[in-house]
Amino acid sequence: MSRDYAIFRTLGHHHPIRTEQHDSRWLNEPRFVHVQLIPESDNPEDDKIYFFFRENALDGEYSGKATYARIGQVCKNDFGGHRSLVNKWVTFLKARLLCSVPGLNGIDTHFDELQSVYLMNSKDPKNPFIYGIFTTSSNIFRGSAVCMYSMSDIRRVFLGPFAHREGPTYQWVPFQGRVPYPRPGTCPSNTFGGFQSTKDLPDDVITFARSHPAMYNSVLPINNRPIIIKTDVDYQFTQIVVDRVEAEDGQYNVMFIGTGNTSPPSLPPSLNPQALPSIPTPPP
Amino acid sequence: MSRDYAIFRTLGHHHPIRTEQHDSRWLNEPRFVHVQLIPESDNPEDDKIYFFFRENALDGEYSGKATYARIGQVCKNDFGGHRSLVNKWVTFLKARLLCSVPGLNGIDTHFDELQSVYLMNSKDPKNPFIYGIFTTSSNIFRGSAVCMYSMSDIRRVFLGPFAHREGPTYQWVPFQGRVPYPRPGTCPSNTFGGFQSTKDLPDDVITFARSHPAMYNSVLPINNRPIIIKTDVDYQFTQIVVDRVEAEDGQYNVMFIGTGNTSPPSLPPSLNPQALPSIPTPPP
Repeated sequence: MSRDYAIFRTLGHHHPIRTEQHDSRWLNEPRFVHVQLIPESDNPEDDKIYFFFRENALDGEYSGKATYARIGQVCKNDFGGHRSLVNKWVTFLKARLLCSVPGLNGIDTHFDELQSVYLMNSKDPKNPFIYGIFTTSSNIFRGSAVCMYSMSDIRRVFLGPFAHREGPTYQWVPFQGRVPYPRPGTCPSNTFGGFQSTKDLPDDVITFARSHPAMYNSVLPINNRPIIIKTDVDYQFTQIVVDRVEAEDGQYNVMFIGTGNTSPPSLPPSLNPQALPSIPTPPP
Repeated sequence: MSRDYAIFRTLGHHHPIRTEQHDSRWLNEPRFVHVQLIPESDNPEDDKIYFFFRENALDGEYSGKATYARIGQVCKNDFGGHRSLVNKWVTFLKARLLCSVPGLNGIDTHFDELQSVYLMNSKDPKNPFIYGIFTTSSNIFRGSAVCMYSMSDIRRVFLGPFAHREGPTYQWVPFQGRVPYPRPGTCPSNTFGGFQSTKDLPDDVITFARSHPAMYNSVLPINNRPIIIKTDVDYQFTQIVVDRVEAEDGQYNVMFIGTGNTSPPSLPPSLNPQALPSIPTPPP
């Protein structure tokens, strides 16, 4: 919808449901990469839809412009709220997906440009393994990484502290106050609470959900680092599929990784180490 | 002085003068690289000492750990203040030295690890040209850059807005209020104001100077970008000297750049693309 980014659902005779409009806390110039329904329990009422995307970091999350990879969630049975969130998702939450290499000096190297996602089913449909392809944001240092995430880590982040700030000049901090009940992000069902529809949610839940769409903690990859990085080549990873194979010595996950055909970063002449005539001469 | 970082002066029978102790706003684990006296006017009373260093970004300047390159200043004739800044510099200010390559996507690639500085004299001793060697902070993407700065850009930043925040959960913003007179950072002399010694400064100047040692704006390099970057090699730049030479077709600045002998970054086995057996296998 032009500059109006949305997670949008039309569903038969129901009114369409969408994300809050023109609110960069919800979505900030996202690029959607993947979407998947993942059950939360044996009760289909608890099913959630997960969105994988990259978007601009929120104002104040970073001193400069940056891309963050995100995972977002809504409940399958979200029919919007009332008052301030009529026909808007009331169970939308998002968290940062980190894919970084720890630095010896404490300064990590981030792969933030989420390119694609593959979900490998395990025997438990509630817990697929998630493989993500990430590239760097820099046009000078180009590299790719594969990170792997578990649903339990993702659910733990969505059950953790909400990101909160008082006003535009405050920093984002973990919300320390009382979170209203039922906790925003919980699906209406008999599994985790007694309410029947998102339209029944109390006012304080709606108000809180509207202003707290982001989680404070990031989802870390398994083992806290990529399983592969590739930095010394002139192409980048674009797609991944993973297959489980049985071998004599056990099970293996075999990754099939597609690459683009990008040429090495082309530098303007003034940045090319081989071309130095353009150095400004100080006035005499 | 162990973990107590300071810019410290002993001067004959005068009491030593130093930076505020245990205040990360003043110095945050700095590594000093260069120091230089540079005249501000024809009056030696206005002379300033400039410090070039790198240090940890201030809490809240960056969502994570980061190194920033800095230029700091004190007046040669700073003899400390009174009340809260007795025997402390009252003219200390610092600003970030940026050496970044603009990104096509608005996300810049930063070279923040200031390694060395060379000042090339021009005919005007007040306006040497400043060459800095910078390297990247990442242990995955290693590169070097040379950036060039003018004193007029540096003075403009020190005369610009002070970095300000209300409390630990606020962001750093440009200070919008009334800056006390004489402006903190000005040297006592007859050139720019009538006061005779830093010890004569009014209380409000001392109080403001103590809590506002950093400028809000960064010093940008000439042409807003490095004059050289080097990214595809297994060594990094360490030192620079610049010579002015006359040629038939005009004047040239010839840079002599020293390099280290670092080996390529050694990755732990799990990050080596050639060694993939350590991928965790999801539970069946």
